[in-house]
Amino acid sequence: MKRRKFLLMSSLLGSAVAIIPSELFSYPVTKNRLRVGFIGTGLRGQGMMRLTTHRDDVDIPAICDIDDGMVNRALTVLKKAGRPEPTVYNKGDEDFRNLVKNENLDGVFIATPWEWHHPMAVAAMNAGKHVGTEVPAALTVADCWDLVNTSEKTGRFCMIMENVCYRRDVMAVLNMVRKGLFGELLHCQGGYQHDLRRVKFNDGIKPYGGGVEFGEKGYSEAKWRTNHSVNRNGDLYPTHGLGPVSNMLDINHGNRMVHLTSTATQTRGLHQYIVEHGGSNHPNAAIDFKLGDIVTTVIKCANGQTIMLSHDTNSPRPYSLNFRVQGTKGLWMKDSQSIYIESVSPMDHRWEEDKAYLKEYDHPLWQRFEDQAAGAGHGGMDFFVLRAFLEAMKRNTEPPLDVYDAASWSVISPLSEKSIRQNSASIKIPDFTRGKWKTNKPVFGLNDQY
Amino acid sequence: MKRRKFLLMSSLLGSAVAIIPSELFSYPVTKNRLRVGFIGTGLRGQGMMRLTTHRDDVDIPAICDIDDGMVNRALTVLKKAGRPEPTVYNKGDEDFRNLVKNENLDGVFIATPWEWHHPMAVAAMNAGKHVGTEVPAALTVADCWDLVNTSEKTGRFCMIMENVCYRRDVMAVLNMVRKGLFGELLHCQGGYQHDLRRVKFNDGIKPYGGGVEFGEKGYSEAKWRTNHSVNRNGDLYPTHGLGPVSNMLDINHGNRMVHLTSTATQTRGLHQYIVEHGGSNHPNAAIDFKLGDIVTTVIKCANGQTIMLSHDTNSPRPYSLNFRVQGTKGLWMKDSQSIYIESVSPMDHRWEEDKAYLKEYDHPLWQRFEDQAAGAGHGGMDFFVLRAFLEAMKRNTEPPLDVYDAASWSVISPLSEKSIRQNSASIKIPDFTRGKWKTNKPVFGLNDQY
Repeated sequence: MKRRKFLLMSSLLGSAVAIIPSELFSYPVTKNRLRVGFIGTGLRGQGMMRLTTHRDDVDIPAICDIDDGMVNRALTVLKKAGRPEPTVYNKGDEDFRNLVKNENLDGVFIATPWEWHHPMAVAAMNAGKHVGTEVPAALTVADCWDLVNTSEKTGRFCMIMENVCYRRDVMAVLNMVRKGLFGELLHCQGGYQHDLRRVKFNDGIKPYGGGVEFGEKGYSEAKWRTNHSVNRNGDLYPTHGLGPVSNMLDINHGNRMVHLTSTATQTRGLHQYIVEHGGSNHPNAAIDFKLGDIVTTVIKCANGQTIMLSHDTNSPRPYSLNFRVQGTKGLWMKDSQSIYIESVSPMDHRWEEDKAYLKEYDHPLWQRFEDQAAGAGHGGMDFFVLRAFLEAMKRNTEPPLDVYDAASWSVISPLSEKSIRQNSASIKIPDFTRGKWKTNKPVFGLNDQY
Repeated sequence: MKRRKFLLMSSLLGSAVAIIPSELFSYPVTKNRLRVGFIGTGLRGQGMMRLTTHRDDVDIPAICDIDDGMVNRALTVLKKAGRPEPTVYNKGDEDFRNLVKNENLDGVFIATPWEWHHPMAVAAMNAGKHVGTEVPAALTVADCWDLVNTSEKTGRFCMIMENVCYRRDVMAVLNMVRKGLFGELLHCQGGYQHDLRRVKFNDGIKPYGGGVEFGEKGYSEAKWRTNHSVNRNGDLYPTHGLGPVSNMLDINHGNRMVHLTSTATQTRGLHQYIVEHGGSNHPNAAIDFKLGDIVTTVIKCANGQTIMLSHDTNSPRPYSLNFRVQGTKGLWMKDSQSIYIESVSPMDHRWEEDKAYLKEYDHPLWQRFEDQAAGAGHGGMDFFVLRAFLEAMKRNTEPPLDVYDAASWSVISPLSEKSIRQNSASIKIPDFTRGKWKTNKPVFGLNDQY
């Protein structure tokens, strides 16, 4: 039985289904128009909304945010695009519940602070809406399970909007993996190595830098993101590195992650930044940040492979997602832009530049949509991840990054925190597919469809 | 009290001292000539012996090996250098005991199969000889302790001959670390990423490749080294990566390694190589190799830092020791030959080439001995590590890489094996200095002395 049919059926059979059957049957296999709500209209939500307005087949009837400044900016985005004014839900933290309950929508896109992704996604699915959520999808093991259970119960999908899966080089390397260029995969690396000090701190007016404020006095991400560095020690943001290599390793589609260990360095960067830019008398200089500056996580997979993830956001450094993809025949490393393939590379034991390979193995999806993707956010990645979310709804099928991906990628954070609390103890990773990973076939990036 | 004096005194006071006091007192603080024996005259032993003959102040009165072919090659090395013929100890596995007992030597250099380093070093120290041993110094936790205890008891040193500590770029980066360029260190990486398939297998005649034989039918390293890949799963060869970063992190000299985790991939490369080059009917195609193709180890240090080590010897890949040195102000990465230092690098968030930095921070020791090192083995590293071993004996002082380094670097292998056996469990690392790491001052590479 196809996954899509299974979903429809399970949602009919489920005893606790909150959606109305007539609404369910109103979904044609191919839907000509979509109605999508936006929960969270901060900078990220606005960007994705702007991209959405490029599509004539998607209406945006409702938006939700608690920050009126951000709501106004979103309204301007829609107005400039010639779109009708949406219904605005801005009456406090829980008003998103009214949006998902009252509005007739195919799906919602969630771009709120991390801690809100899970309750919003669950509420949306329970109200019969499909979900596209920004990363991470949830912050605890229980909440990851809740996403899976809710999606299975309601027959609504929960796509994790991990745009890096669609990065052009990443998709070309996925293509190489699928064509066997690296042989059998052995080891992958990824990570989030991004100097976020000017994101975590600002002047309360501009989004990046200019001060050392955060929380109530901060603006944009500094308002909420920085608190995770105060209160948590672990890989807080694993999916940019993990998502792409999960697709290459067929995680949840023939393979799964079995256990992990995490180890954190001491905590220096954020305090030092505050002292340097705000002085040692600034009240924030007294904050005791918990997040280790660099967190290294090693994951073991059921088929034998290992994944090394690096989380590194408090220190001065060039941006890097730390990709390395290695198999029995060769390897690719992003930071050095180099590749080596046995008996293909011209010189034994010598790196080649990766450029020609990335071009030769350019993914069919990128070839097809190159022109449309150009100019879209994050080098075109956003175009593809948004398109996948929308196409899944139009075709009434599973998105290529589904709730099992959302849960198994997001759960790395709480498990990483647990490992660090226990001096790098080995922590088991739940199988959110309940054994279906053994027979699930790969779905991501198979062709030029989505 | 200086370490040197402490050693002399402890060896006098020790109740189980096997050396004769008169011999001990015959060591002047500065010794004009040295007598050094060579145990193990395979390719590595021959190379180091050849380097030793460049020094007029070192005699080689005795050599030892069980392989007469290798003994003859070593005798030729000495003859060509115009040296007198040494006494040869070649009467079986235990004849080294006669060498250390019978010969009047300042020290012995050990370049035998890994499993012999520990018993030979212990026998030599107990016979009053200083030791320079190839890496690793021992293969079990108990044997690492035995080295430490024996060295402390006898007042004889046990230097680990980790030549990569003396690599020119590594010493330049150490210089940068000491000068504070990276700020406070946070995270280091190192490893041994070396396609050893043509070392582990040969035709029994030549040392590298040409066949898929090992063990009894192999030649040179294939005779013994490959068996470790049959029987063990762990980071078998950690010191090339770990030694250099240990010096940077002041391990045993103000810092120490506290615990580790190791995770291994599946085992593919060696079997595949045998099938490809010897056919699936070759008897060795039936061997069940235990060593995972890639082993990732993460170490936590007392001062907070983390070390990531990679062991990767079964797969096609360019050689790399995987160095990365990162602190609160910036980082260096060897594979991409790049560096970034906040407010020094001209562009924010942009890598620079490391070349100019490596030149500017070229280590004083390299500047002083550049001419002599050129042409010596492994790009000059061997010159320095040999010189350090000899100078320590001439000055009757501790070598810059001592028995605590030998034990704490070598112990990573058995602890890594243990972690992998226990699904990447966190394993405590012994403090071989028994607390002295807290007050020990750094000694390696402080100036142009040694």
